[in-house]
Order: sequence, then structure tokens, then C-alpha cells
Amino acid sequence: MIIVLRPDAKKEDIDHILDRADKLGLKPHISKGTERTIIGLIGPEDALRAIPLEAFHGVENVIPILAPYKLVSREFKKENSVIPIGEHLKIGAKKVVIFAGPCAIENEDLLVEIGEEVKFAGASVLRGGAYKPRTSPYAFQGMGLEGLKILSRVSKKLNMPTVTEVMDVRDVGTVAQYADILQIGARNMQNFTLLKEVGLTRKPILLKRGLANTVKELLMSAEYIMAEGNHNVILCERGIRTFEDATRNTFDVSAIPVVKQLSHLPIIADPSHAAGKWNLVAPLSCAAVAAGADGLIIEAHTKPEEALSDGAQSLLPEKLTTLIQNLEKIALAIHREI
Amino acid sequence: MIIVLRPDAKKEDIDHILDRADKLGLKPHISKGTERTIIGLIGPEDALRAIPLEAFHGVENVIPILAPYKLVSREFKKENSVIPIGEHLKIGAKKVVIFAGPCAIENEDLLVEIGEEVKFAGASVLRGGAYKPRTSPYAFQGMGLEGLKILSRVSKKLNMPTVTEVMDVRDVGTVAQYADILQIGARNMQNFTLLKEVGLTRKPILLKRGLANTVKELLMSAEYIMAEGNHNVILCERGIRTFEDATRNTFDVSAIPVVKQLSHLPIIADPSHAAGKWNLVAPLSCAAVAAGADGLIIEAHTKPEEALSDGAQSLLPEKLTTLIQNLEKIALAIHREI
Amino acid sequence: MIIVLRPDAKKEDIDHILDRADKLGLKPHISKGTERTIIGLIGPEDALRAIPLEAFHGVENVIPILAPYKLVSREFKKENSVIPIGEHLKIGAKKVVIFAGPCAIENEDLLVEIGEEVKFAGASVLRGGAYKPRTSPYAFQGMGLEGLKILSRVSKKLNMPTVTEVMDVRDVGTVAQYADILQIGARNMQNFTLLKEVGLTRKPILLKRGLANTVKELLMSAEYIMAEGNHNVILCERGIRTFEDATRNTFDVSAIPVVKQLSHLPIIADPSHAAGKWNLVAPLSCAAVAAGADGLIIEAHTKPEEALSDGAQSLLPEKLTTLIQNLEKIALAIHREI
Amino acid sequence: MIIVLRPDAKKEDIDHILDRADKLGLKPHISKGTERTIIGLIGPEDALRAIPLEAFHGVENVIPILAPYKLVSREFKKENSVIPIGEHLKIGAKKVVIFAGPCAIENEDLLVEIGEEVKFAGASVLRGGAYKPRTSPYAFQGMGLEGLKILSRVSKKLNMPTVTEVMDVRDVGTVAQYADILQIGARNMQNFTLLKEVGLTRKPILLKRGLANTVKELLMSAEYIMAEGNHNVILCERGIRTFEDATRNTFDVSAIPVVKQLSHLPIIADPSHAAGKWNLVAPLSCAAVAAGADGLIIEAHTKPEEALSDGAQSLLPEKLTTLIQNLEKIALAIHREI
Repeated sequence: MIIVLRPDAKKEDIDHILDRADKLGLKPHISKGTERTIIGLIGPEDALRAIPLEAFHGVENVIPILAPYKLVSREFKKENSVIPIGEHLKIGAKKVVIFAGPCAIENEDLLVEIGEEVKFAGASVLRGGAYKPRTSPYAFQGMGLEGLKILSRVSKKLNMPTVTEVMDVRDVGTVAQYADILQIGARNMQNFTLLKEVGLTRKPILLKRGLANTVKELLMSAEYIMAEGNHNVILCERGIRTFEDATRNTFDVSAIPVVKQLSHLPIIADPSHAAGKWNLVAPLSCAAVAAGADGLIIEAHTKPEEALSDGAQSLLPEKLTTLIQNLEKIALAIHREI
Repeated sequence: MIIVLRPDAKKEDIDHILDRADKLGLKPHISKGTERTIIGLIGPEDALRAIPLEAFHGVENVIPILAPYKLVSREFKKENSVIPIGEHLKIGAKKVVIFAGPCAIENEDLLVEIGEEVKFAGASVLRGGAYKPRTSPYAFQGMGLEGLKILSRVSKKLNMPTVTEVMDVRDVGTVAQYADILQIGARNMQNFTLLKEVGLTRKPILLKRGLANTVKELLMSAEYIMAEGNHNVILCERGIRTFEDATRNTFDVSAIPVVKQLSHLPIIADPSHAAGKWNLVAPLSCAAVAAGADGLIIEAHTKPEEALSDGAQSLLPEKLTTLIQNLEKIALAIHREI
Repeated sequence: MIIVLRPDAKKEDIDHILDRADKLGLKPHISKGTERTIIGLIGPEDALRAIPLEAFHGVENVIPILAPYKLVSREFKKENSVIPIGEHLKIGAKKVVIFAGPCAIENEDLLVEIGEEVKFAGASVLRGGAYKPRTSPYAFQGMGLEGLKILSRVSKKLNMPTVTEVMDVRDVGTVAQYADILQIGARNMQNFTLLKEVGLTRKPILLKRGLANTVKELLMSAEYIMAEGNHNVILCERGIRTFEDATRNTFDVSAIPVVKQLSHLPIIADPSHAAGKWNLVAPLSCAAVAAGADGLIIEAHTKPEEALSDGAQSLLPEKLTTLIQNLEKIALAIHREI
Repeated sequence: MIIVLRPDAKKEDIDHILDRADKLGLKPHISKGTERTIIGLIGPEDALRAIPLEAFHGVENVIPILAPYKLVSREFKKENSVIPIGEHLKIGAKKVVIFAGPCAIENEDLLVEIGEEVKFAGASVLRGGAYKPRTSPYAFQGMGLEGLKILSRVSKKLNMPTVTEVMDVRDVGTVAQYADILQIGARNMQNFTLLKEVGLTRKPILLKRGLANTVKELLMSAEYIMAEGNHNVILCERGIRTFEDATRNTFDVSAIPVVKQLSHLPIIADPSHAAGKWNLVAPLSCAAVAAGADGLIIEAHTKPEEALSDGAQSLLPEKLTTLIQNLEKIALAIHREI
């Protein structure tokens, strides 16, 4: 931790800071420049974070040196984490994994139909929402428990593991019973209560980046889950909020290599929600895989016109098939496979 | 709803859209321009919102005309809503109301000390967090139930109504029992589960704007609460995320008059969280009141250096006193009072 | 300057950095923590800025300590700068100054009409564009030299100093001849060529903040002008780009007190361009003055419907009159006047 | 153009709008819904854009239907534009073109050294700045004319076409004489004076997207150049400003397919400026090519530590060689080549 003092800081201000540092077991280094005096504090930075140093008299600025996350960090664990899904699938290994399916579970026949198509196209995980976070209270909110049961039956029938969102802490147990991967949606990325609750399970968690959250905050939210003992965290970049309105969100493709540098956790991309338009899904998918994503989660529907949610960004299965064929070549180019 | 067709849209595309519109009981108006054909659909726009028109063949763009919110809108209710707090206080009336207190409840003596000071300075509502949403799982998470009990006792002692945050749906009943106003924090603005739960109470709800949420989305989240029957909603502008890093967030002062135009609900401002620095709290408070805010929620602490949370943005009580004196004159200038 | 080393930095990396520092006449302070080694370099930070320290082997991060601006900084000059406009007017003194007028100069009679009205309402400076920066090449680009001549004649007739934008380095001399204050528009805030050119004049310069520029960058652009010897710089906050679309831009009211802390230069606000809608101009004007702005620049027009540019955000003179009356009371509340 | 009326709009408001529309030769379509009346105006939308319809009494909202750009649009020209550079090179054809070189021209020997290396690595165009837009007036501003002469001599020696930035309208002729492609930097994207000036030449123009500019505004700036008769415009995505601070800017990879849909102009990507860190350049380059970019402009330097500008984001030539080898495979995957 570096403390930059104001030019008018007095000796008693400095003594007061040094006194507090000493009580916390920190060793100070003082550097007096021509324009500013700087105090470097060496020792457990966590103890320092709890103290509002900016509120101390004479302090101009406080600069933390160490990252605030631990368990998620590349320094804590050098090798990539590989998250097993069921018996045969792994996220974060050489193979780039495709998650696909409808935005919302609408009925069993349709989910079977879509599931078969996306499996044939090359997808390994079936997505489908039973609880839907909708901006409007009047919009379709998902089928709830009934949807979970459908998802579970279709999963067995097609022999595909599944991912579905959980929004309510009271539903975590139930969702964990019916689905293979629990998704924390973008709007709940900093719902710390929910993060702790899924941290208590041992299920793989797909943690989506919030629309206005930094990569660092995404990692801190993963840290919440891991701090409860659940190390099966898969991150997901799904676009951030910016001034650009040609796309629904701005897909932050850089987040993929940045996460890879800072953390050992796998990261996948959601081009469907980032773009908001089906005809941008293919180029964004290619970009994500080329940048090193460990997987993609893509909305697909056999009848986008009739989808109860997000039809405009859903890919037809035949387009998904073509896309995955191109992705295979891109994966090879960067020494991965699909 | 306006549907703009692509220049290459065919007659069968148009017929297909008209057919769906007819089944939903909507009347179409077709305008053929030299470069685009446009279909206007008149009737219940809600039915249309459920259909992914962008996914239809030949459609270039879909433009909604009506706002998606109802109960919160100025059209639904022309007069300002006034939310009663206890027996004597009203939010949204002529008087601008000051909420003040520490970020977190730390112990009873300190809360009494701070409470007395802020009451003397002119604050009417005591703030203090028992459950704290912290970016880091290793940071102080609040005193929980014990904090609520302290808050309740101090409230009675000082005869001041209180506001405190609720983060977990399972805590709503308990928080409602101990506090006068339930706060939904910025990170939970789109935690729809929590919105519905507080909508089932009849307590006043202080709904903070999310860091990356538009005013429209803030109103939609208020709609969630009102749709459950709780019309006692107070909105709060607390800064949004932008590229500017001289302040913690960018205080969107325009949101105050924009909300006043679109909605009948009261809106207060939180200059402490917007700025992140105590020495910006006074000018932002003045700006908020001048722009028409119905109240301010300000972090104050008698010993900012020792605050367990957000000390750097906490005002000393004597500064709060001076600030409120200036605010009184500003309020008078725009025909309000404090 | 603080250099944070990577955990795997080697002794030779450190020696190499120390060697370069030594050659630049800098004194190093090395602090070895348990997780990171940090090098503090004391001496002329400018010399260091020219070196890409991040490109050095073993370096994780480089943290500058001193602000990159000098002449504009509050440290360089403690007292507020007061910029004289003509013989009687001062920007940055106790009096808050109102600039008003049409977006574009359209014809002489109209400018006289509008000028008389805004002067009567209480404005001291007449604004009007002769060169208009328009997003579209097909939109009205302003009257050019003829507009400047009209502005100059109306200025004399009404005895009001004027402000007008200059966009082309080749026009600086001409604009300086006809107008009292030269405006650098938001889109040209980092047109460094133009900044240098107006820096060579001794005219007051109104420097608008760019739509995506930080306060620090605004100050750096002012530094460009001052570095050429022209110290008559007036800053202007006019809204930044964010995701919020209820207003044309997000008016960053915090920028006003932030600039006052960092710099001695005066700062005014442009609520018309920030909001983009005339009915938000009054509350934003009140907010700006309450936050400490030294002036306001407001678009006003007697026939907004017929304005050739920005009619939708232009205030009718009678509304300007009422606004200025309210602003007088707000100014008094914070010990200013209008 | 669609005009949405306020619920309280009166018959005389509507008549007044219809009257103005009639005078402009526009045909109105009126749709009366239960909650809003809407007027569609058919005819030359440009005439309408010049009128501030939002300022008309009774108007709630004005929605343009047609894009404001013409010459740049995919509707105006269906086939991709291919811009010839010298005799042998084409931008926008099947081959993805690599531009590489130092940020700034520093001296002739070094430029030859870097040029030979990047040419050997597979680059076709040599980049190097003679005029540098620097945030600080005290930073190295480029070698100016002398730099241009060096660039021109190295270009001949290595038989590589060149790109360099022009910042001052007065330098356009000179730069056009020494370089093959004229670059308009991000900070000058809306320097309309400069756009018109380069529009008067017939040189290929590399137009970089501004840090806070939408894709639509980028296209409008290209329209400025084309409206002057110069159709040789190459667009460039180089990152936008957002709240994320892990990268210098957020590389908006979606802009590439969005531009391809809206316009016939080629678009290249600048991963170096987007990321600001050399170790992100490779993944972002892969992403850009996978998303359909027509080229890349990459900063490369043989001695990044000694670069006078942007050393931290400069790639060593050997890394560029490896990168281009990977890019070749990615290009093949999407039916392109390098």
C-alpha cells in the first residue's frame, strides 16, 4: 500500500499514520520527494484495506499494490483450472465447449427438438432458463420448477449436461438437484447473498460478468464463491454497457485474455446476449474463440419467431452447424479443438 | 409499435406480419416511402412486446412508442406521490428531507453519538447498514440482526425513523420489523426476486439506481415493487459508471428532473456514494437540491478515520450542519424548504 | 513514480531499471514486501514519463505520483484566476456570468432580436456560432466570415462581448479579430494543433470538455494553451458520453468542484448541450450554479421552431428571465451573485 | 420520419406540423392509437432533419427512419469497396493486410531496421508517426517534416507503402506528398475541417474511430471525406472509452461486423492502441481477423524500452512473426488469406 501525502501534510499527520501502521504490524518506508512525501507500508495489505486511509488528515491518495483477490488469482494457482461437468466433459481443457439451447424453456417437445438439433450441430451442454430475469414485471418470467423438471428429463433423454439460471437463494437447492451447472446472471453478479449460497454447493457455477462490472470485480465475485469452498467456477464475458447503440452491449473480447493472465479460472463467452442480434453471433463467436475463450454459450431456437424470450438473438440450428465448423478451424489455428 | 422493413422485404414478409398482428387484435397502418416501408401497429403494445418481431423475415428495426412502465408513470398518476414515513414525516412533499448517519452500524454508543449529531444538524432520518454489500468477501459484512436491533433501539431513543439495506429475500420480514424504510442497494436494483419480496410488504422502499442502469430501468424496477401492491417507493440517484475516474462514480444530476417528468414518485440523491470523497459531498448536495431532489442521504461519522466502511466519504457532523444551512437557502430559491 | 515489479522479476531486471534511473538523475527507494518489490523513483517525473517503463523486463505496473499538468494546477497558483472580458466583465470572480444566444448566427435582425432579449433577461455575453461543427456534411455549416461580421456588429450595437467557435487553425486570426472569446468545441478538445494556435493569441479561450475526456485531460488541453503563453483559459463542462439515453449527454456536475480543487482556472457549464432538451436546461443550470460554476452558457432563441441548429434545446427568452431570477437566489445561498 | 405526439397535443399542434410538412413536400400518415397519435412523414428526410421538430408544440419524440449517411452505406453500393494502395496492394479484398512499424519515427537507421523486420514478418504497409498527438504539451511531438522525409526514403528503400498521421490542415499537402496513406487519428475523427481537407485529395485515408464515437458517427465522418469526392476511405476500430480499466481502451470487436453490414468500406483494427499492452496484442489481433477485419495496424519496435512513444504496447518483431503465422490459419478458417 502506497500513501501519497498532500504537499501541506504536517509532521503530526505523518506520525499519526505511522502510529496506526505500527499497531497493525506494518513496516513503513518513507520517501521524501521535492513535491510529495510518500509512505510505503509493507505487510498484510488486508488489514490496511479495512482502514479508510483517505480519511486521514494530510493524505492525498492511497494506492493499493496487491490485487484484492486471492483464490481466483494466477499467483495462487499457476495451472489452468479445469472444471469437470458430469463424467465426460471438462471446461478449461484443450477442447472449446459449446453450450447451446433456447433462452427460456417453453415446453418439453420444443426443448427436445432444439436439444437434438444443437447436439447434432456440435454443442455439448444444453442451456435453457426456467427462471428468467426480465426488466418488466409483465414479461414471461419462466416456467419455474416445472421448467427445471423438463430440463432434467430432456438432459437424460439426450444425454447432455445442462446449465440454467438461479435467481433466488431459496431455489439454489432445487436448481442444484435438476441441473448440472448453476448460472449466476449478469444482474446478480454482485448479489453477494446468492454468491455465498451457491458457494456452499459443490456444483459448477457459471458466473456471468455484470453489465457495468470490471474484470477485477468479476474476479472478486468468483472469490466470494470460492471463499465458501466451491472452486468450480466458470466465468463468462457477455458484453458491457457503453454509449454504442448499434449492438445491445459491447462485447469486451479483451476480457478473455485479461482473465487468462490474472486468473486460473476458465472463461467462456456469450455472443448472443452481447450482440442482441442473431446475425452478429457468428463473427463474435469466431472472435471469442480466436481470443482464447474456453467455450461459448449460444442461444439457438428452431422457431425464433415464436420464442418467448430473446428470439431476435437466437440462431437457427443450421446456422449453428456452419458456425461450429468454422470455429473448429479457428480453434486449430490457436492449438485448441472443438 | 413501429416496424421498419428492410428495403428487400417481400410482400409475403409483410403479409406474415399483418397476419400475426391481426391475430393479436392489432390494427396495422402501412406507409410506403421511397426507401422504406413502415408498419404502424395500433392496439395493446404489451401483447406485441412478447413477440420477437426483430426475428421476423424482412424486418429491419422495431421501435416501441409507449413507455414499458405503467404504475410508476406520470401519465398513470398526474400528482406527485408523497410517501409517509412514520407519523410526521413525508417524502416528496415541499420539505426536502435529509437522511444521515454512518455507512455501517458499528456499535450502539457510536450510533447514538452520530445520530444525535446528525439530528442536531437537521437530519430527519437515520441511516445505518446492518447488512453490507462488499466487493470483497474478506471485508466487514455488517453486524446483521444485532445491528438491526441496535438501529431500532437508537431510533426509539432519538425519535428518528430509520433506513437500512436488505440484501437477502429471507431477511425482508426481519428488516421490516426493525426499520422504517427498506433500502434496495444499487447492486440489487435488478434483483427481481428481492424487488417482488419487498413489494409484498407495505413498507416504504428506498430503491437505489444501479451503477449501469438507465432511468427507464430504474422506473421498471420500481414497477416491479408497485406491481406487487406496494406503492411506497422512493427512488435514489447515486451515481453511474463512466470512464471518469476523478470521482468514484459520475453523479447523474439530470436523472432528478428526468424522473420528475416521467414519474410521480419522489427521488432523493446520495452524494456520498456518487463522489466517494467527503470534500465533494457539499457541492453535490447543493446541486441535487437545486435540481429538484426530494431529499438527500448523506454518510456522516464522528470519527471517519475509524469507520468500518466508507470512512473516506463520511462527513463530520459540523460540516453537515453548515451544509444544511446552505441547503435551506437553495431550497427556498426553488420554492422548497428543508 | 512508483514501479511495481512482477513477483518473478530478477535481480538483473532491477539493476537495469536502477541503471536507467541513475542516468536520468533519479534517486531510487526500494521496498521489498512479501509479495512484491517496489521501486520509488524521486526526481524529475517528466524525464521518467518519456520512458516506457512498462516495457521493461520484470515490470508489472507503473504508477505516476504527480499530476502531469503544471501551469493549470492549483499547486502552481493558489488563488483563483479571474479572466477579464473587455473592460467591465470578469470570469471567475464573485459574479456568476451568463452567456446566452442562439446556437448559430442566422441573420443580423434575428441576432439583434435575440441579443436584446437575453441581455434584458440578465445575460452578459452573447453567444452565436459562425462555424458549426455538424455530424453530417449535409447539415447547415454556419455562415462563416459573414456570420462573424454580423456578430461583431451586433456586439457593438448591444454593447455585449461575444463568444464564438473556431474550428480551423487558418481562421484563428480572423475569429480573434471579430469576437471577444474564442471557443474550442468539445470535438476539438484534443485538436492539439488548434490548441497551440489559440495559445499564441492573448484572447480569452473557452475550452469545452470533450465527450469522452476526463477532467485530467481537460486540464492537459488547457495546459497546451497556457504553455504557449495564453493564460486566459475558461473551462466548460458540457456533458459526457454514457449509456444513459434519456438525455443527450450526461452532465457531469461533479467536474465543477473537482476542477476547482485541482486548478485555479474558472469553469462554466453548458446545460443546453448536456441535456439536449430545453425543459431540462433550468434544473441543470440551478445544479451547476449550486455546485460552484463561474458561469453558464445557454442556448436561447426567440423562435426555436425555426432555428437552423439545436432548436430543441433552445430556451425562450421569457424562460431565461425566470431562470436567472431563480439563479440569483441560489448564487446568494453559496455566497456568489449574478 | 416518425413524430410521436404528446397525449395532450391539440388539433392546432397537429395542423401546424402538417402545414410545415406540406410546405416541404412531405406526405403525412396519421395513426391515432388509444394512447398516442403518431405522424409518419414520407418524402425527403434530409429536409426534415434541418427542422427542430422536437421544439414544436405537442411533440413528444421524433424518430428518424433512414440512416443519415448515404455514400458510405451498403445500400448506396452493394459490393465491398477495395482501396488500392500503390500498384500491388489492395485493402478490402480477400487478403488481410498487415500494417506495422513504430509509433513514432525516431531516426532513419532505426526505421530501416524495424521496417526490414516487420516486412520479413509479413507486414505489407509501414506505419510511423511524424506528427504525434500527445496528451501532454511537454511530450515528444514527433519529428515533423524531417520525419516525413525519412519515412519516404525508407519506403522506397524497402519498397513498402506507408501510412502516417496528419493533424494540421496546413500539412495535408506535404503529408500527401511523402506518404501513401493519410491517417486521421481518433482525436480528430470529428475534426470536420481536417476531414474536408483530406477529402479534397485523392489519397487513401485511414480514418480511426474516436474514443467516444459510435459506429454511426464513424460512418458520418467517412461521409464527410467521400462528400468531397475522395472515395478511398479505410475505417479503423481502435477501442472505445468505457469504465473498464484493465485495458487502455475497450476493443469493440463487434464494430467490425456492424460496419460490414452497414457500409461497403473496408475496416481494419488497431489492437495496439486498444489494449495499450503488448501482451494483449496477439489475442486481440486473432479476434479482429476472426471477426472479419480487412487488416491490422500493429505497433512494432526492435527496442521497445527505448521507443519515444508507446513502447509498452509495441511488439518485438519475433512476436509479430509468430502472430502472423497464427493469423494465416485463422484467415483461412473464414475464407480469407494473409
